[in-house]
Amino acid sequence: MSAIKFELKHICKQTGARYGILETPHGSFETPIFMPVGTQATVKGLSPEELKSMDAEIILSNTYHLWMRPGEDLIEEAGGLHQFMNWDRSILTDSGGFQVFSLSGTRKIEEEGVHFRSHIDGSKRFLTPEKAVDIQQALGSDIMMQLDECTPYPAGKIYVKNSLERTTRWLERCLNHQTTSNKQALFGIIQGGMYPDLRKQSAREIIAFGTPGVAIGGLSVGEPAVEMYRMLDVIQPLLPEHKPHYLMGVGTPHHLFEGVLRGIDMFDCVWATRLGRNGAAVTSIGQVTVRNATYARDFSPLDPNCDCYTCKNYTRAYIRHLIKADEIFGLRLTSYHNLYFLINLMKQIRMAIQNDCFGDLFMDFKKQFDSQRR
Amino acid sequence: MSAIKFELKHICKQTGARYGILETPHGSFETPIFMPVGTQATVKGLSPEELKSMDAEIILSNTYHLWMRPGEDLIEEAGGLHQFMNWDRSILTDSGGFQVFSLSGTRKIEEEGVHFRSHIDGSKRFLTPEKAVDIQQALGSDIMMQLDECTPYPAGKIYVKNSLERTTRWLERCLNHQTTSNKQALFGIIQGGMYPDLRKQSAREIIAFGTPGVAIGGLSVGEPAVEMYRMLDVIQPLLPEHKPHYLMGVGTPHHLFEGVLRGIDMFDCVWATRLGRNGAAVTSIGQVTVRNATYARDFSPLDPNCDCYTCKNYTRAYIRHLIKADEIFGLRLTSYHNLYFLINLMKQIRMAIQNDCFGDLFMDFKKQFDSQRR
Repeated sequence: MSAIKFELKHICKQTGARYGILETPHGSFETPIFMPVGTQATVKGLSPEELKSMDAEIILSNTYHLWMRPGEDLIEEAGGLHQFMNWDRSILTDSGGFQVFSLSGTRKIEEEGVHFRSHIDGSKRFLTPEKAVDIQQALGSDIMMQLDECTPYPAGKIYVKNSLERTTRWLERCLNHQTTSNKQALFGIIQGGMYPDLRKQSAREIIAFGTPGVAIGGLSVGEPAVEMYRMLDVIQPLLPEHKPHYLMGVGTPHHLFEGVLRGIDMFDCVWATRLGRNGAAVTSIGQVTVRNATYARDFSPLDPNCDCYTCKNYTRAYIRHLIKADEIFGLRLTSYHNLYFLINLMKQIRMAIQNDCFGDLFMDFKKQFDSQRR
Repeated sequence: MSAIKFELKHICKQTGARYGILETPHGSFETPIFMPVGTQATVKGLSPEELKSMDAEIILSNTYHLWMRPGEDLIEEAGGLHQFMNWDRSILTDSGGFQVFSLSGTRKIEEEGVHFRSHIDGSKRFLTPEKAVDIQQALGSDIMMQLDECTPYPAGKIYVKNSLERTTRWLERCLNHQTTSNKQALFGIIQGGMYPDLRKQSAREIIAFGTPGVAIGGLSVGEPAVEMYRMLDVIQPLLPEHKPHYLMGVGTPHHLFEGVLRGIDMFDCVWATRLGRNGAAVTSIGQVTVRNATYARDFSPLDPNCDCYTCKNYTRAYIRHLIKADEIFGLRLTSYHNLYFLINLMKQIRMAIQNDCFGDLFMDFKKQFDSQRR
């Protein structure tokens, strides 16, 4: 029996976008959904209560970071990641692979796994498909990911082909190693770079394992957006209709819309929180870089069309002051708004899908969002 | 008519400690009270709602910092400090003098005021008693402080005498300049260093002006604690019984008890929040430096006897992880607990005064608080 249950409830007649319900051991929620990222067992600057107040239903946490610090054994001893971080809703963990490839300077990929050095203490480490499963089982996430190689952009075709075939073999090893399939769902990951035929090959191979959900990796890694959309177009017809489709690491408003249009049900991205920590807000009228001097005496809210805690109570002038004065509360306020914005956007998207007018929403959104672009 | 109203409700039969009610234009609260410090129009890391959830009734904000950034004119334009920072309870502002003396490297004191350079942009500034009043009137605090000189420790007697006499003259200028006495109370400040006769002289001079409250400055500036207590003992008999007594910049648990014992009604201090940001907690069993390795696998709360948000939901191990990983949420959790601890301690103190057993509470507290001291 699978640890999760996915029900496809409606397909938008205007666009084919999907609306569904996903149930995990820690709750049930509607899709398409955006998952805030809690890298180190915390969504930067925000409390679990604040995340709940904006209706966050599932967060992503990073296996690599927790493995390095504080260590998955400590978290297991604490009763698992949910209890450790006081988050009783759903958690998805990645496999650690992405950070091994992006954070550690020197790394060596073999069939058996990846050798690398910790970015914290320089110690030698070895990540295998089995180890990735072990760590995620200790963390106790609701959804875990297979170890894969996220091929960089650009990459040669032979490299990408070898890499995706290894990713397929690694999925098999992950599945063979997993002992918690009744409590944790394990997703396979489609790779294949920017090569349509390789994307198809990977999709067929990964989907054949029948994992309870299917992820698409290796996109939004520096390629032009149209390339990403083209890859999604290639993959979409192959995806299992009655399983959730997760597009990894994608989360700007435009990309969310484009992904939903192509049958994606789950998204995660650090973009919104990172933007907030850099003193900028994503709003219904585009990006507002509130740390700029132009907002010094602007006593209006970050987003004129938002009813979040930040926008109801604070002005751009105040938030700018906090950011200029290096006050943590400024980052809290922008991060809160930015996540609220994306989560609320997904609510509107789900509503529009159910009402068969997702295409209209997309067009209206673009018009308003890009209106201030200079 | 005064902007504030103070009612002395009870004097502890065991100790002489005072319990009262202080009413400002933004609310009424019991004394003795601890005021969290919101230096730059924010109590570092915490939201107004969090401060309210721990029953903070009045906060202190720093005139110097707000004058330098974002500027008192901007805050006035925002509708005053309360509205700017979304805090509708009481605010006390200092005069800016303390920071001029402690933050700016070069400064020159004259009868007219103090010349100094901004610690932010190095610009030349001049703070006079009149300017201190102007800024605080623009901020719109409930209680404002006269410009004084906080004499350093140690300081020669002639210097201290000249200084305190100038502080007296500055109080007169502040009062002559103030135009908002029906909306803002202006407190005089007793100086006099560590010289009993000078403290008495200053107390007599300052109290003679009949300000609605009286502050004691220049203590907790590096002197041995017994010196501070001795000065308070000298001043106490001279203080007006039916006005609030404010001991500036004091706020460790022991000092709060010792101050209350000597008739103090109001306290402020950055100690608790600074301690929190440094990864340590003040608890009923003493200081817990939670960032230390000894707490890595300690799955108990910061304080075994605390029911605050932090202690109810998070372990020392989790908080230590956040601090080691430079996660803001760790500072939020320790800061929250530390302020809650002091505010809750003051509640217990007020209760004990009303029950004529403040001395017993003090003894019990010391026993438990110092129990872990090694």
